[in-house]
Amino acid sequence: MHISELGEFQLIDRLTDSLTLINPSSEHGTGDDAAVLNYGTKRVLASTDILLEGIHFDLVYTPLKHLGYKAAVVNFSDIYAMNGEPKQLLVSLGISKRFTVEQVEEIYEGIRMACAKYGVDLVGGDTSSSLTGLTLSITCLGEGEPEKIVYRSGAKEHDLICVSGDLGAAYMGLQLLEREKRIFQSQNNPDFQPAFQGKEYLLERQLKPEARKDIVALLAEKGIIPTAMIDISDGLSSELLHLCRQSKAGCRVYEEKLPIDYQTAVQAEEFSMNLTTVALNGGEDYELLFTVPLNQHAILEKIEEIHIIGHVTGEDAGAALVTRDGQEVRLKAQGWTAFVPEDQNP
Amino acid sequence: MHISELGEFQLIDRLTDSLTLINPSSEHGTGDDAAVLNYGTKRVLASTDILLEGIHFDLVYTPLKHLGYKAAVVNFSDIYAMNGEPKQLLVSLGISKRFTVEQVEEIYEGIRMACAKYGVDLVGGDTSSSLTGLTLSITCLGEGEPEKIVYRSGAKEHDLICVSGDLGAAYMGLQLLEREKRIFQSQNNPDFQPAFQGKEYLLERQLKPEARKDIVALLAEKGIIPTAMIDISDGLSSELLHLCRQSKAGCRVYEEKLPIDYQTAVQAEEFSMNLTTVALNGGEDYELLFTVPLNQHAILEKIEEIHIIGHVTGEDAGAALVTRDGQEVRLKAQGWTAFVPEDQNP
Repeated sequence: MHISELGEFQLIDRLTDSLTLINPSSEHGTGDDAAVLNYGTKRVLASTDILLEGIHFDLVYTPLKHLGYKAAVVNFSDIYAMNGEPKQLLVSLGISKRFTVEQVEEIYEGIRMACAKYGVDLVGGDTSSSLTGLTLSITCLGEGEPEKIVYRSGAKEHDLICVSGDLGAAYMGLQLLEREKRIFQSQNNPDFQPAFQGKEYLLERQLKPEARKDIVALLAEKGIIPTAMIDISDGLSSELLHLCRQSKAGCRVYEEKLPIDYQTAVQAEEFSMNLTTVALNGGEDYELLFTVPLNQHAILEKIEEIHIIGHVTGEDAGAALVTRDGQEVRLKAQGWTAFVPEDQNP
Repeated sequence: MHISELGEFQLIDRLTDSLTLINPSSEHGTGDDAAVLNYGTKRVLASTDILLEGIHFDLVYTPLKHLGYKAAVVNFSDIYAMNGEPKQLLVSLGISKRFTVEQVEEIYEGIRMACAKYGVDLVGGDTSSSLTGLTLSITCLGEGEPEKIVYRSGAKEHDLICVSGDLGAAYMGLQLLEREKRIFQSQNNPDFQPAFQGKEYLLERQLKPEARKDIVALLAEKGIIPTAMIDISDGLSSELLHLCRQSKAGCRVYEEKLPIDYQTAVQAEEFSMNLTTVALNGGEDYELLFTVPLNQHAILEKIEEIHIIGHVTGEDAGAALVTRDGQEVRLKAQGWTAFVPEDQNP
């Protein structure tokens, strides 16, 4: 069977389905943003991500320093999504021979910048040459207090569904970069200047995303422990479905509540794309999607960077978007899946 | 500067040279087989390896199940080399679209077999498609008791240098597979049968290596804590130099003491290769190289699977092999480095 027939998530399910954990220190395995290990008083959180040239990044428009930065931040985001704090990073690189030492150092410079900003130590890794493209594989370890770690599975009916920041901008940034690349390649003009003015936010969201350390800190400060949490890497829709499935719940999110930046809206218009589809399926936002008990409403609605976008329902109700005109549209895990041909993405 | 000018080890040094650790839980970072993290009473050991198609393995003669098995075992070996026990594994795969689901499952089957054999839990990972070859990136976490973790840096003058098992067989296995592949490709005969009879040990060492869990257990049983330890992935010579450099020591190892299997010797003869060079530089043995105080001699010489091959000297004496005729030959880190063109390997 070809992988594209099965899809990424089902493949992962198939590979990890019957895994049983035997070590007492293995508290929680696959199925969340990070594994949870019990090595003493604090819990160790472990998450890993692989980034492949041509799939996850395009070196035509991705500065190496940004690539390193993003690769690290994306992993920190997984640890924050468990309500933990990233502490250590292991970096493996597969580097083609066309790279210079200085270029590899640039990647590392970006990784180090991210580590410095988020208070993470680079503690190990592996470096090898590659026959083909550049590969980055990053593992992040972090810590969490046992009673404060948040899984995807804890959402309860009537919980509020919240999301930090805004959605769809990173995807619009990607589309913009791809368009300018096509123009550049078709013109064959070395003086070509891409048309990026007024779109800086979109580019930054794509090329140099940040993890929501501030949101985790803010929730802790307010004494809020989410009932479930996940970071948005594959798109809101896909993450909502993960969360619902693992919590055995359904959800209703409201189109009018989706937080979208002005630049995202302008860009979607320019590309004649449906803005809601972009926000739902764009991916790479690295915002936090979480659920909290209904009684936290008063606290949450005052926090500017957090948006209440819907609520958790019983499992039978399914997962749906309520459109501006009151229609219910079933959510699909279109997402940003590397196994789906490009043209099936939004 | 091109990476090949600098070499793998110097590149790694350059990338990790000025790293400072800021988190109290980051007890020890780069420079050993695993990082050491302090998350409570036990220490967490973390190691990561990346395996790339065409560099680390050739799918023409590597069964996928073996590949998965080896990828896992190689990481366990790093944890044992710290005198620890592997406990958790995170697996990232980059898979080209030509793979079927069943093939990916075969890789996982091998990983699971290794995990089952060594008592390790598969707790997480990432799966993505790849535009080019197959990539496996594996991170292993393990535990060690604070006072029993062994680094590369602890070897003292007069310590005995020991190695487990035998050397050079995996490399001979690789050469054999490469030869048969060339014959197969030149003959264009679908009924071609490779000539592997009597060479099973060499193939097994290359395709399905084991980590020396038994040696770590044996040393614990005998109450021996090595002063320094490293696993032999890049070849004895290269690992000895690591150990000497990090211990600020020199060494003398004796050609006549190098443990070599009969099949390895026969194969080197057949290939007209210098057997000592094969044992020193072959790599992928995944044996343990360690140093122990001189007063442990009586215990160690009785253990069949452990061989005393030399002793640690002062730093000024340098690292050298004493040949059968009493000549001293300076050790070179020829090793099995992925950045050196194939023909510069032994």
